[in-house]
Formats: sequence, C-alpha cells, structure tokens
Amino acid sequence: MADVASRAGVSISTVSRALRGLPGVGRQTRERILAIAEEMAYVVSPEASGLSRRATGRVAVVVPRLDSWFSATILAAIEATVRAADLDVMVYQVDGERARARFFHELPTRRKVDAVVLVSLPLLPNEEQRLDLMGVRTVVAGGRLRDLPYVEVDDAEIGRTAVDHLVALGHRRIAMIRTSDTDGARWNSDVNRVRGWSEALAGHGLGPDPRLLVTEQYDVRAGARGIDQLLELDPLPTAVFCYSDDIAVAAQHRLERRGLRVPDDVSLVGVDGNPLTGLFEITTVDQQVPEQGRRAATMALDLLADRTPDDPAQCVESRLVARASTASPPAALLRGGGGQTGPGGTTV
Amino acid sequence: MADVASRAGVSISTVSRALRGLPGVGRQTRERILAIAEEMAYVVSPEASGLSRRATGRVAVVVPRLDSWFSATILAAIEATVRAADLDVMVYQVDGERARARFFHELPTRRKVDAVVLVSLPLLPNEEQRLDLMGVRTVVAGGRLRDLPYVEVDDAEIGRTAVDHLVALGHRRIAMIRTSDTDGARWNSDVNRVRGWSEALAGHGLGPDPRLLVTEQYDVRAGARGIDQLLELDPLPTAVFCYSDDIAVAAQHRLERRGLRVPDDVSLVGVDGNPLTGLFEITTVDQQVPEQGRRAATMALDLLADRTPDDPAQCVESRLVARASTASPPAALLRGGGGQTGPGGTTV
Repeated sequence: MADVASRAGVSISTVSRALRGLPGVGRQTRERILAIAEEMAYVVSPEASGLSRRATGRVAVVVPRLDSWFSATILAAIEATVRAADLDVMVYQVDGERARARFFHELPTRRKVDAVVLVSLPLLPNEEQRLDLMGVRTVVAGGRLRDLPYVEVDDAEIGRTAVDHLVALGHRRIAMIRTSDTDGARWNSDVNRVRGWSEALAGHGLGPDPRLLVTEQYDVRAGARGIDQLLELDPLPTAVFCYSDDIAVAAQHRLERRGLRVPDDVSLVGVDGNPLTGLFEITTVDQQVPEQGRRAATMALDLLADRTPDDPAQCVESRLVARASTASPPAALLRGGGGQTGPGGTTV
Repeated sequence: MADVASRAGVSISTVSRALRGLPGVGRQTRERILAIAEEMAYVVSPEASGLSRRATGRVAVVVPRLDSWFSATILAAIEATVRAADLDVMVYQVDGERARARFFHELPTRRKVDAVVLVSLPLLPNEEQRLDLMGVRTVVAGGRLRDLPYVEVDDAEIGRTAVDHLVALGHRRIAMIRTSDTDGARWNSDVNRVRGWSEALAGHGLGPDPRLLVTEQYDVRAGARGIDQLLELDPLPTAVFCYSDDIAVAAQHRLERRGLRVPDDVSLVGVDGNPLTGLFEITTVDQQVPEQGRRAATMALDLLADRTPDDPAQCVESRLVARASTASPPAALLRGGGGQTGPGGTTV
C-alpha cells in the first residue's frame, strides 16, 4: 500500500480509506488512487463499481460458522435489517484458515457485493492486511479489526458485571470457565471476559486464584468438562462465571448430575441472552445479539448510501438478567467454614 | 403464453423475453406483461427461462427463520455444499404471510438467483401456485411442495420408531407433545409424527388415549408446558414422545423441577439429532439434518448443470439414538399397579 501511496502522493491512510470507500477522500483523489492501485495489480478495484457502475444490491455476511446460536441470531437480525432496505444478503461460512484464505482470494476479484459485515471473525495479521484489498465497504460486528467501523460489546465490562453481582451476593471464591476455538486459538471476547473477571476480583481484593480459571475447547460439553475440572479443587468455588450461556447450561446440568445443587451449592452466571437460560433459570449477562446485528447492518447501509455512520465505533450495552442460578453462597462458607479469601479479602 | 400475448397486445416472443428478463422489452411493457402473467397464473418453465439466460452464480435458500437449530444447521450444510461448487448463497428469511407475499412478489421479476432451495416453508395453496412463477429451478428440503424435487425424512416413520422403542422397553401409556406454529398453524412434520405415534400405538393395541396427545405452540418452553399438561393426568404417562429435541430438553428439565426422575419415573424421546440431546443424555430419532441439506444442495446443483438428479424424491433415513432418558417403566406399573393398557394391550 506504501507503493500506491507514494505513486499517488498521498498518505497510506488515505489510500486505505479510498480503497475501502470511507468518507474523507475527494472523488478525484479516490479515482486516482484506485487507478494506480489497479495499474499496480494491487487490487482489481471493486470500489470503481460503487462509484461508476451499478451497485449489486447485495451485502455479504461473513461468519465463522452458521450453526451456533450467536451466529444464527446475529445473521437473522442482519438479514431482516438489510431486507427491509430492499437489499439481499449473501452468507459466507469462513471457518478455519483455508476457508478464510479462499474467501480473501476470491472476494476482491469478483464484484459480488456492495458491502461486507464481518461477524466475530478471528483473523491472522496478514489476513487483517487483506481486508483493505477487498475494496468494499466493510463493517465489523462482535469485535474490532484494524480501523474499520464496528459494533461490539464491552467484554471486560461483562466479566466485571458478573463478578460484581456474585460478590454482592457474598461470594468470595468465584471461578471462571473460559474457552478456546477447536484449534486452541483464543477469541478476543474470551480474552476480554477473562480480563474483566480477573480485574473485578482484584478490585474486590479477591485474588484471583489462578486455579479457579479453567479452559475448555468450545463445544456442547465444554461446560460439563469445566465443572469436572473445578470439582477437583478443595475448597470448591461457590460460584462459576461461564464464558457463554451454553457453557452455563452444560455446567448446571453437570453439577446436578454430580449431586450439587444450583444455586444452593454453586451459583452460575452465563453470557449471551440465549433463550435457553430463560428455560433453565440461569442468570446471564445479555449481550443483546439482535441489537448488535441491527446496528452493524444499519452501519453497512449508511456506508452504502454514502452517509457517514452516526457513530462508527459503537458499543452495545450489556445487561445483567438475574435468575434462580445465583444466590448467596452456602451457609458453611458464610460462617468461614471452607471459604478462601484473596490477599485483601474479608470473610463475610 | 399465447393468451398472455393476446391480452397484452404483444408478440409471443416479447412475452417470452419479458418473463425471462431478457433485454429488448421496455420497462412499462415488461411490467404489464408480468402483471398479466401473474394474474393468469401463467406457468414459466424454469428450464426454458434458465437455459436462455446468463447464470447468476447464486442459489437462494429460503427459510421461515434463521435463528432455530434446524434452520441454522440445514443452512450451514447447504452453504458448504454450494460453496464447494463455487457458487454463492443468498438467504431469505420468510417468516409469516406478509414476508412470504413479498418474497413471491419480488423474486420472479428480478433475476437474482439460478436456483432456490425452499426449507420447511409452510405455504398456503395460492402461494404454492406461485412457485411456478418464480421461473427458477426449485428444490424443497424438509418436506414436499407440489411436484417439485425434494429431500425429506419420513416423519410418520419417526413417530413409529419412537413408539416401537418405548413399547419394546415395556411402556404402555405413551404420551406425545406435539406443536404448532406461533399462529396456531400445523406443520406437516408435526401432523406426520403424530400420525406415526398414533398408528404405532394402534398397531401395538394400545389405543391411543386422546388425552395423551397435548399441543403447545413452538417456543423454548413448549416442552415444559406440555409436561405441566400431562402431569394433570391420572394415571400419568410413563413415557413422552416429543415433537423435537428442544421440546424434549425442556420436558426433561420440567419433570426434574417437579420432582420426577428421567427415566425412572418418565422416559423421554425427542426428534432431530440436536447436540443438546447428547449433553442431556436424551434418546432421539436423528433426522440427519446436515445430510438433508447436503442432498438438497446437490440436487439444486444438478438442476443448474442441466443434469437430471439421480433421484428427485429423496428420503433421508432417520435413526434411533438410544440414551439414558429411556428405560423400562416404573416397577409399580410393570406389576400393573397403576398402568393403563389400551384395548388390546397386555400387562407385562
């Protein structure tokens, strides 16, 4: 991109903005940059299509996989919003490195869509570079990538909210079941929820005890395996903050199968707002997934209409939904019978 | 076509061009022809229209709603299969009558896709008529519509499989929780599973007792409400066949909350193959949803390549996955202490 910038006599960030169709670059400058980029075989400029050719009327939604509650729910909201604007939605499942490589290879060279919404896509650094080359207006949902407009939640805040709720109920020994992708990769949402959990515990003078943080690869049984790990500890945690609602659902099932009661013996908090938590009476931090989808789609539509989005860096508020899975810790612990307090912790 | 031409006062070839979206017909003329064709329910041959125009490289997948396990799972399989053939997938959420009307109004008049896969779409008779007007190759997944090629499961067979399994374990009083759409409409899959349940019971000389069939509108709590209805009965059923796995998951949760054990007091069988049943150890009749998606997509790709599908009427085999939620009925009933047997039933 530096080559294009120097040939065009503009800054790299101007090239980047021009290639992605962001405002703030004059029409002539943009066209000159696109021409140079094209000449240098830097990218077959799809942007030219947005400016001088007919729009495709399509928005691409790119998700790691469709058959998860989060992906299906955010896609449903994006589709409804895009459809209401009389445009169509193309979906790309881009799960794993090979699928991502193929996606990045093909999209720029075929003028298939006017805009792209990237949902929770974990990218390698060189893949992030290629985002610029797509040459279409791009919005990120459920995270951030480079300097693209985004809609996200504050995952560290989610972790803090869960811990604050549990501490207010009297818990001092609060575990977390975190997760990783099937290839072991960390998701940003996970890293930030762990950070929120850790910071909030420290803020309350409660450690955290590193043994209380267990990791399980993400699948339908992750929560059950996480509970099995935690039940090895002595003393046991009195509460568990789970990365997601489906982990909390599996954790509750496993606790009950192993003879422990929720919340009498162990309190549980999940994250998402998955309707299953309503059924299972599990406390959750609702991250308003449909609202994230609507806002990301609206932002994409704004970019398509050459409107500057009201706010290209949006954080959807999460909110605690307290249900029957959280209560005060067992009486024995309240009397100090088996609880462990962190360095500066006080026994209730 | 001659009728449309004479009503519109144009040549047959103009009608043909207009219906197929070819150039050379003025916008007003074209709209008038389409209106007349629609009014006369004129049938556009998908083959004729498809052969003579440029392919779009896109397949539409039409689902009632994206945020259900069935829809998300079958869409994931369709997308992967279509993508492997280097084509793209457009998704349409068409939930409710208004959305369907809009879909049927818009699709035929815009050449957006080469083929359509209709997934479990409940259609009114006049909507079924309009399928012909779409003028694209169409495949049905998860059911049948008119004489279109389809992939389905045998839902009556699913009901029989569940009942046979329970009867073999010694159950005689086998309830069913059926379901309806939020507007009260019946789904064919539900009607056929009920038929299978009823026929199998009759075949075993076990009734069925009509009070053992309860209906709940489909949502995350349907299974819980169904259990509440069934627990009013005296004597209680010893087993419950649930329309779907999520209904079985909710039913199991509700039974346990009300102090009954699964399978000691009540056995449960679901339908789908939803991974949640693995977690909750629930017996299910797996309807192989990903396989249904792959086959429907393959059939659509065959039609696009002008290959005749090997079999345009495919039935994917369902299979019983027996887990911990089914066992012999309570000892009291085995001794005849409270069980009810149907007309020709024998007490074990």
